[in-house]
Amino acid sequence: MTHKLNYTLAELAKLLSAELVGDGQVVITGLATLQNASSGQLSFFSNPFYADQLKTSQASAILVEEKYLDRCSGNKLVTAKPYVAFALATQLFDNSPRQGAGVHYSACVDASAELGENVSIAANVVIEANVKLGNDVVIGAGCVIGQNSILGDGCKLHRNVTLYHRVTLGKNVEIHSGAVLGADGFGFAFDGSKSVKIQQLGAVKIGDDVEIGACTTIDRGALEDTEIAKGVKIDSQVQIAHNCKIGEHTIICGCVGLAGSVTIGKYCIMGGGSGAVGHISIADKVQVSAMSLVSQSIPQAGMYSTGTIQAKTSQWKRNAIRFQQLDSIAKRLKEIEKSTDKN
Amino acid sequence: MTHKLNYTLAELAKLLSAELVGDGQVVITGLATLQNASSGQLSFFSNPFYADQLKTSQASAILVEEKYLDRCSGNKLVTAKPYVAFALATQLFDNSPRQGAGVHYSACVDASAELGENVSIAANVVIEANVKLGNDVVIGAGCVIGQNSILGDGCKLHRNVTLYHRVTLGKNVEIHSGAVLGADGFGFAFDGSKSVKIQQLGAVKIGDDVEIGACTTIDRGALEDTEIAKGVKIDSQVQIAHNCKIGEHTIICGCVGLAGSVTIGKYCIMGGGSGAVGHISIADKVQVSAMSLVSQSIPQAGMYSTGTIQAKTSQWKRNAIRFQQLDSIAKRLKEIEKSTDKN
Amino acid sequence: MTHKLNYTLAELAKLLSAELVGDGQVVITGLATLQNASSGQLSFFSNPFYADQLKTSQASAILVEEKYLDRCSGNKLVTAKPYVAFALATQLFDNSPRQGAGVHYSACVDASAELGENVSIAANVVIEANVKLGNDVVIGAGCVIGQNSILGDGCKLHRNVTLYHRVTLGKNVEIHSGAVLGADGFGFAFDGSKSVKIQQLGAVKIGDDVEIGACTTIDRGALEDTEIAKGVKIDSQVQIAHNCKIGEHTIICGCVGLAGSVTIGKYCIMGGGSGAVGHISIADKVQVSAMSLVSQSIPQAGMYSTGTIQAKTSQWKRNAIRFQQLDSIAKRLKEIEKSTDKN
Repeated sequence: MTHKLNYTLAELAKLLSAELVGDGQVVITGLATLQNASSGQLSFFSNPFYADQLKTSQASAILVEEKYLDRCSGNKLVTAKPYVAFALATQLFDNSPRQGAGVHYSACVDASAELGENVSIAANVVIEANVKLGNDVVIGAGCVIGQNSILGDGCKLHRNVTLYHRVTLGKNVEIHSGAVLGADGFGFAFDGSKSVKIQQLGAVKIGDDVEIGACTTIDRGALEDTEIAKGVKIDSQVQIAHNCKIGEHTIICGCVGLAGSVTIGKYCIMGGGSGAVGHISIADKVQVSAMSLVSQSIPQAGMYSTGTIQAKTSQWKRNAIRFQQLDSIAKRLKEIEKSTDKN
Repeated sequence: MTHKLNYTLAELAKLLSAELVGDGQVVITGLATLQNASSGQLSFFSNPFYADQLKTSQASAILVEEKYLDRCSGNKLVTAKPYVAFALATQLFDNSPRQGAGVHYSACVDASAELGENVSIAANVVIEANVKLGNDVVIGAGCVIGQNSILGDGCKLHRNVTLYHRVTLGKNVEIHSGAVLGADGFGFAFDGSKSVKIQQLGAVKIGDDVEIGACTTIDRGALEDTEIAKGVKIDSQVQIAHNCKIGEHTIICGCVGLAGSVTIGKYCIMGGGSGAVGHISIADKVQVSAMSLVSQSIPQAGMYSTGTIQAKTSQWKRNAIRFQQLDSIAKRLKEIEKSTDKN
Repeated sequence: MTHKLNYTLAELAKLLSAELVGDGQVVITGLATLQNASSGQLSFFSNPFYADQLKTSQASAILVEEKYLDRCSGNKLVTAKPYVAFALATQLFDNSPRQGAGVHYSACVDASAELGENVSIAANVVIEANVKLGNDVVIGAGCVIGQNSILGDGCKLHRNVTLYHRVTLGKNVEIHSGAVLGADGFGFAFDGSKSVKIQQLGAVKIGDDVEIGACTTIDRGALEDTEIAKGVKIDSQVQIAHNCKIGEHTIICGCVGLAGSVTIGKYCIMGGGSGAVGHISIADKVQVSAMSLVSQSIPQAGMYSTGTIQAKTSQWKRNAIRFQQLDSIAKRLKEIEKSTDKN
């Protein structure tokens, strides 16, 4: 991992709106955790749990809150939110390749498509009829953009992303490879002998600043649209079924599966591998723990879980068999309570 | 969402084999739920639970069973199965773009491939050697069809679908973007120090009228074929391992994972995120609830579940810790029962 | 399923390092399980559980351990590890199409890319700048290889695989269609109102002889690299988040989801649909059963599980409701024990 970019600590203090305490001429060549930092690297300290690492860290400078200033020796950048400043620093040190503007000769762009300024379209991209791309849009190799889709300014699609027709993206939406937006929702009417397809006439609408992970699927609505509000972050391998509505700034971790018509509020966190059955609502600021199933609406903020805690399989099995007797156990206990009460 | 298609209610009655009660000249311009319908839209009523919505619905006409006729004012289309009629109506109002017949100049079609009549092959499609496409087959942009694969009449592959070699599709199979059929099943023999690959010599066979969701994977068989019977509907993000056999008209919801050699009967429903361990059989008409694990064969129709019900994490934790003591609790209860019996 | 390849039993004995007992001139035309074998096919016997199948099997020869020799009539190939020999036999009988060497005219290969000897690049492949491909590398149609990625000798990418920039593959790595390596890890710092992106500056490093299933995603590291050691086998639909480290020869079954910074030892098996929360460690030789969640580090080899055992939903529900009272049940039992002790 070689970062070519260098900044003096004084430059970083300015760029990160932090207060410099120490030698502003120190050159910072990369970022690292406290534990793994070597000379020339900037790290951050935000969790007292890691205080021990401060003593041994080789970092040349540390992003730190004022209240922890005394704990750090060496150069510091003082800021109210060290982890946020660190996130901004990763953006400064990002040297991932940028795709140049222009349309690659191998791309198939329909004559009816409208392209904004400074658009970049890589090899083998297919842009279908009536697509509109905003300014500074970047489309990676192998992407296919379906008819009448609209991409706002600054959208970035990594390689091999698929958008169906009439998918609308706000500004600065980033979509990772293998993701599919706008496939048919899973809707059938059973006629007694077979499933009759319900054509999915809705679309998909994604707000500004949404990020969507690799191989994630967001299905188009049956009648209305599937909607992801601004600032939502969705990890890889997530399935969002038709007509879901996800509120602003909610976090959906990897492998989550949401059935149809699930409504999730703002600032929620759906833990990795969690899921929700169809037609339920989840309030704002709800957190669902990893691999938990939401099977009823959650009207109130808080943390929710299902499942059991890991155990050696031999021990787990004994308890899991007893789970099958739990109702009986409860009733028998009640009986004994009654009889001992009488005594 | 703009639907260009219009029908008079009289036309719809005829097309949906329903009995018209009301004004046949009313023009229907779209479809909606009772709750969201506006003037000009057709809705349906099939669940008495939503009877309240009948009173306030703005729908211009309602698909309804005869027995509920009195509950509806306004125009009606009377039919034995309103929801099925509604599904058929979505097909009438489907205005999603159709891919025109012909082979796009950028497609790479092997000279040995056989193409039926009226085939449509979009940009950047790759058709490998000895592939056979039936009549009216539609292949979306970026699809790759492996050697010796056979697609029946009317198959539709959306964009960026991958078929390996020797995948056989019946008639009217629809496959969504990102799906992969025919990748190697996951088979290895452990030689004491490393895993030795078992080449997957089987193939994948899909029956008529199957639908397969986005980013779903169906692996090829080890020796025999992986088989999906006619009428099966498979949602997005599903994994079907080698040698599975899925019976006719079974429904597999999103994020389901089936291990190798699982046999599922006809008319089953595997709920979202559910799974099955390898080498088990599931009878006809079994329903497995969301995120449940089938770890033993199910010889009898019915609904099956695993897991626990959601709770606030704080409360869940107390109970989950007690689960680890459940066998002990059961034994201690037994002891008390014995001792109180003696009294 | 037609296998064109034929071997005499004597040839197979030599190729599989087995001892021939019987007629070496018998021609073997394919492989099958004991149960499904027909004349001309080779099968294997390694599990006494299937002893009954020996009596009725139509196999022309059987791979078998010396100790079970008496159980088999007919021709035998005697070997210490019949299942491993069978795996090697599948490789002999593998007649899946081989992609010829050379670069397809429709591929876009950057002038700065370095190609080894005997490389095969199929239609519509995109090879970005500074990519290095070792000898005998095979790249299937529609693959995109990001800048500065390095593929060791003998790597095989099936169709429509996506590698981001700076992904490094060892020798003989096989990756199935739809897989995505090197997408951004899911990292954000919450600033009180929105999520600030942490650029993922690390990369992905895959060891020799790793196999990666269809639609599997392996995210790039935040600061350091995500690392998969040699001999690891990963099934389809798996999500491996940023900074995970997977030890040698570990098996990751389908639909597994690993959160960020999970460390897994050598020779582990993560069962299908299982998962692990972030920042935990799993020791060598741990097995996690299907759909189990690892929420704490596992310092010791063994089998681990979570969840409950399947039951009819009606019965399950009664027990699941009682689970919500389990802490109360335990406390009430304790009370009774105390009071009966006093008696």
